[in-house]
Amino acid sequence: MFTLPHLKPIKSYKSIALLTSGGDSPGMNPAIRGVVRAALNSGIESVYGIQRGYSGLITADIHKLTSRSVTNIIQRGGTMLKSARCLEFKEPAIRAQAAQILRDKNIEALIVIGGDGSMAGAHLLTEETGIPVIGLPGTIDNDIPGSDDTIGFDTAVNTALDAIDKIRDTALSHERLFLVEVMGRNSGFIATQVGIACGAELVIVPEYAFDLHDLCVTLAQQRASGQGSSGIIVIAEGKDPGLTSRIAYQLEELGQDPKICILGHIQRGGSPSGHDRMLASCLGASAVHYLLAGFNDILVGVRQGTIVDIPLRKVISEKKILDRNIFDITTLLHK
Amino acid sequence: MFTLPHLKPIKSYKSIALLTSGGDSPGMNPAIRGVVRAALNSGIESVYGIQRGYSGLITADIHKLTSRSVTNIIQRGGTMLKSARCLEFKEPAIRAQAAQILRDKNIEALIVIGGDGSMAGAHLLTEETGIPVIGLPGTIDNDIPGSDDTIGFDTAVNTALDAIDKIRDTALSHERLFLVEVMGRNSGFIATQVGIACGAELVIVPEYAFDLHDLCVTLAQQRASGQGSSGIIVIAEGKDPGLTSRIAYQLEELGQDPKICILGHIQRGGSPSGHDRMLASCLGASAVHYLLAGFNDILVGVRQGTIVDIPLRKVISEKKILDRNIFDITTLLHK
Amino acid sequence: MFTLPHLKPIKSYKSIALLTSGGDSPGMNPAIRGVVRAALNSGIESVYGIQRGYSGLITADIHKLTSRSVTNIIQRGGTMLKSARCLEFKEPAIRAQAAQILRDKNIEALIVIGGDGSMAGAHLLTEETGIPVIGLPGTIDNDIPGSDDTIGFDTAVNTALDAIDKIRDTALSHERLFLVEVMGRNSGFIATQVGIACGAELVIVPEYAFDLHDLCVTLAQQRASGQGSSGIIVIAEGKDPGLTSRIAYQLEELGQDPKICILGHIQRGGSPSGHDRMLASCLGASAVHYLLAGFNDILVGVRQGTIVDIPLRKVISEKKILDRNIFDITTLLHK
Amino acid sequence: MFTLPHLKPIKSYKSIALLTSGGDSPGMNPAIRGVVRAALNSGIESVYGIQRGYSGLITADIHKLTSRSVTNIIQRGGTMLKSARCLEFKEPAIRAQAAQILRDKNIEALIVIGGDGSMAGAHLLTEETGIPVIGLPGTIDNDIPGSDDTIGFDTAVNTALDAIDKIRDTALSHERLFLVEVMGRNSGFIATQVGIACGAELVIVPEYAFDLHDLCVTLAQQRASGQGSSGIIVIAEGKDPGLTSRIAYQLEELGQDPKICILGHIQRGGSPSGHDRMLASCLGASAVHYLLAGFNDILVGVRQGTIVDIPLRKVISEKKILDRNIFDITTLLHK
Repeated sequence: MFTLPHLKPIKSYKSIALLTSGGDSPGMNPAIRGVVRAALNSGIESVYGIQRGYSGLITADIHKLTSRSVTNIIQRGGTMLKSARCLEFKEPAIRAQAAQILRDKNIEALIVIGGDGSMAGAHLLTEETGIPVIGLPGTIDNDIPGSDDTIGFDTAVNTALDAIDKIRDTALSHERLFLVEVMGRNSGFIATQVGIACGAELVIVPEYAFDLHDLCVTLAQQRASGQGSSGIIVIAEGKDPGLTSRIAYQLEELGQDPKICILGHIQRGGSPSGHDRMLASCLGASAVHYLLAGFNDILVGVRQGTIVDIPLRKVISEKKILDRNIFDITTLLHK
Repeated sequence: MFTLPHLKPIKSYKSIALLTSGGDSPGMNPAIRGVVRAALNSGIESVYGIQRGYSGLITADIHKLTSRSVTNIIQRGGTMLKSARCLEFKEPAIRAQAAQILRDKNIEALIVIGGDGSMAGAHLLTEETGIPVIGLPGTIDNDIPGSDDTIGFDTAVNTALDAIDKIRDTALSHERLFLVEVMGRNSGFIATQVGIACGAELVIVPEYAFDLHDLCVTLAQQRASGQGSSGIIVIAEGKDPGLTSRIAYQLEELGQDPKICILGHIQRGGSPSGHDRMLASCLGASAVHYLLAGFNDILVGVRQGTIVDIPLRKVISEKKILDRNIFDITTLLHK
Repeated sequence: MFTLPHLKPIKSYKSIALLTSGGDSPGMNPAIRGVVRAALNSGIESVYGIQRGYSGLITADIHKLTSRSVTNIIQRGGTMLKSARCLEFKEPAIRAQAAQILRDKNIEALIVIGGDGSMAGAHLLTEETGIPVIGLPGTIDNDIPGSDDTIGFDTAVNTALDAIDKIRDTALSHERLFLVEVMGRNSGFIATQVGIACGAELVIVPEYAFDLHDLCVTLAQQRASGQGSSGIIVIAEGKDPGLTSRIAYQLEELGQDPKICILGHIQRGGSPSGHDRMLASCLGASAVHYLLAGFNDILVGVRQGTIVDIPLRKVISEKKILDRNIFDITTLLHK
Repeated sequence: MFTLPHLKPIKSYKSIALLTSGGDSPGMNPAIRGVVRAALNSGIESVYGIQRGYSGLITADIHKLTSRSVTNIIQRGGTMLKSARCLEFKEPAIRAQAAQILRDKNIEALIVIGGDGSMAGAHLLTEETGIPVIGLPGTIDNDIPGSDDTIGFDTAVNTALDAIDKIRDTALSHERLFLVEVMGRNSGFIATQVGIACGAELVIVPEYAFDLHDLCVTLAQQRASGQGSSGIIVIAEGKDPGLTSRIAYQLEELGQDPKICILGHIQRGGSPSGHDRMLASCLGASAVHYLLAGFNDILVGVRQGTIVDIPLRKVISEKKILDRNIFDITTLLHK
């Protein structure tokens, strides 16, 4: 459960819009529901949903949402507003055009649910055009600086675990080593939490360097000495596409016969977990309350169990650190 | 993810024991694994598992655990040490006897995983006999004072939600009102989180009074006026066994045809969620670190995302408060 | 997988309608999709969906469905057409009126998805009014005479099992006996399949008599002799509401402490299983093919893995037998 | 539910053994339980479990199983006896040695749970050494000639569907085409059932040829014309490792941006479905009954809902056909 911020409404808005942007994440729907219902129950007259993120904004694919529009979506994966990555929105001219579209529709503020790329667009939009913008952290990667948690992370971890629990059945039955690649191009949050929670033999993340050869030799020796005939190694995909295959190759060279599983896009979908529905509902409602309290150019996130505002400038300029002590839990508990 | 405490080992133990007590909760197994592995990897020579909580302690049903004993249990529901409620342990003489059994086996400290009742026993045991005791919050109810979270709560919420998502299919198909009773005899934490996360029409908890008649009249009126033909009302079981039936009866008197579902014991079982496995692993390891840092008579819990120690005296004398602001989210978002 | 019937189209229809009736069952949605898509791809120009079963028929709550209307419903529980029980449809005058409504809309045939009660209405409708009717077995109870399987049975069994697997965690941890009541007012198909599949100690069904006292004495003796400290007894709800409580009471009298779990409506909902989606898709498509082949007054079901037609007269006048040999598997394997 | 065979016991055995071989499949554990319990309850005095398939047979890794050994395994994925592929068992000399090991331990008959490769070994063993052998179809692929069903197929289909339902969330949110590769090196049973049950746009199986280029052009055209902005294509892995990538490449050449998901080993694990537990329990018990009725050199499978015996010679020499009519259901219903 979260502690909610104490905010006094000092502004009033007649009409706001919201969009989901970037890779979809489970919990975007309850976040949409939270924004729409909180807005309508707080005196905002109209809430508009923009389709396909910034792409729909610049093509004016914008439709009114009612309280009923968001009925029965809290448990659905994906996003009812659809999402997209929009390269054009990197152009200042396009952002100016987007602002004009909002003004033409008398939309006074924008709520953006997405990852760090989406927040960069949001920050520039408000900086250049003055349209108030509030961001919400919608990404499974949990890599938003300033926020301990993001909408979708918990569900993605549970989905990966559910898959690994199944893989472990086969690993145990065949006494095999499995290399399981989870999402996380720039960060190892998913890999670390999944690795601890599945009891992995080893976790590999982009944040912490390792010597591939040494690592494979150690693994091969452990198995030769009878320690752990089966095993799961969790690998964050990283920026480097061939990492998992290279580890497999090295292990094969050392006489092992590892199997590769790439969990892929299943981690993005699925009904959001209880935690993510709660988080998304509270963040969605809070985004509206921050807006009415006069905030702008912020992301509404969570720190130490409390819902907080984080300047978008910070979100897009810093990098969230993976705590080494947490990462080391895997090593402490795996044997 | 959690912030781990910075603790310096100042004590050394050769032999410790652990037990699970009270109602079982999903995540007790990863907590056992965390304690056993962290202890063995921190220089403690022997870790003993006591069967059936305090019952097994007083009958000396105690067996050595190795690193291998706790292999492949991280994903299992229930507790490999079994659990029980033990009324005899309320007798000082019995506790003295228990202490003697531990001493006879050269067991120098005890880790107890359980709810508030179990912590009361743990506190008295150390107070009366001097045997160091560390508690871990193992209960689905999330009602341990001083700790924001307990092992099993997240899983129980997800299990209840999974059930309610299914019930909603039928509620929508038949345009029916369902009264869903979740666990929580003294507290509404499960009901509140489940209620928000399932998009309930209404949540009823022991903490906040309501007028049964008024409430039913309002519900009946809403439905008569066409607002929400289907609906889910989440009710914490409370101390009063007939509450859900009485609500149903009142609604029937008002011309409604509600259905009752009592989720019951399914909420206690099941493979622990990623969150609970992570929490249990970190708490299990931390319990050992607190012990080695010289702590005693504490519960190791979580506050604001950080693992902390809470005096057992506080745990057993206070009552954890359900935040009214969070509770009110249900009302804010349901329509 | 099923063997499909070889049918030659000899009739042509311009416009048909379908409805779902009685208790909803998981798989009704893929059945609707199967009917709609097969019809439109077989030359039928218009397919109408009737809301809320026969209730929507007599109030003319009827809307055109397109191929797109049934997109993305195959995995959804419940029924997009909603369902209801309609007592009025027992009146011949009401059925005549219903037929007139269909004729007024130029609807030439009706497909009814539901249980035996719904088939009774369908049979009378065609008998009295000449409107061709095809039934599909949509009920979790698997009690449709002539059909080995019904849409929703497999999902309901899996849902019940999933719940019992969780209950078993607690049963094992606490060495307790659980009485689990599953759906099945008139038949023990769910109880039997669930009982075998969960490894129940005992299964109680309406079809086979038992002496309550003897049974409880045996159970108590087994447990006293140390055989099976934990256990699951699966009980079909039966016609007699207090059965499960009475068993619990008798066991308590004999010194046992059983816990009761009533699984209830969760068994009706949830995303249909692979089997039920396949069954519903094949039956839905076959219903259209039987209609075009000139059949009327039949239920399209499954016998020995082959999709077959069963006269509605047979469906509503006979009773499906629970195979004693299968029922006895529980006893054979439980110890 | 299945019809059980009527068999009269005419033989008696004092001691039998069983093993699981080849790729593991969910339901092997309930099959083991079924064999062990049925054997012990039918007068067979000793049942031995052989570890790691034929590998454990030739190294005499054989242990007695009791009724209690198989307690609480019915819901577990994998196989408690472990499994392996054993190339050495292709040597007649090794099989002779294996027979000697069985005779030395007074083991009079062998039950083998596995796929067609394992059945080849079983057939040769009995043919060459006279030791009675009964096979059970344990493979997710459902490719055992003579049997409509295999232990693990239903669970594998449900696991794949569960993954695809999640992928569909993302596909819909991003209006993307996904190529999902499921298991099935030689057969398209999983792909077909999964394809129908997930509402796939297209299913590609080894049994039916297709023109890769034409297919991709059609897909690209459909999407260009706005038919189905998102979509799932299910592809059986086939013998040819690069197929899925080649389809992706061709689609990219045509201006599409498909994503690839390879479901991989998750399809082998997981708690067996209700259907597979039922099937495995009935087949396990029936294997014992066939043995006692004097049968040898057979596989016990299912045909048209009835449990039947199939000569192992047939199992290993024929190929199971994928019904074209069923395969065509995908095309009929996808649009």
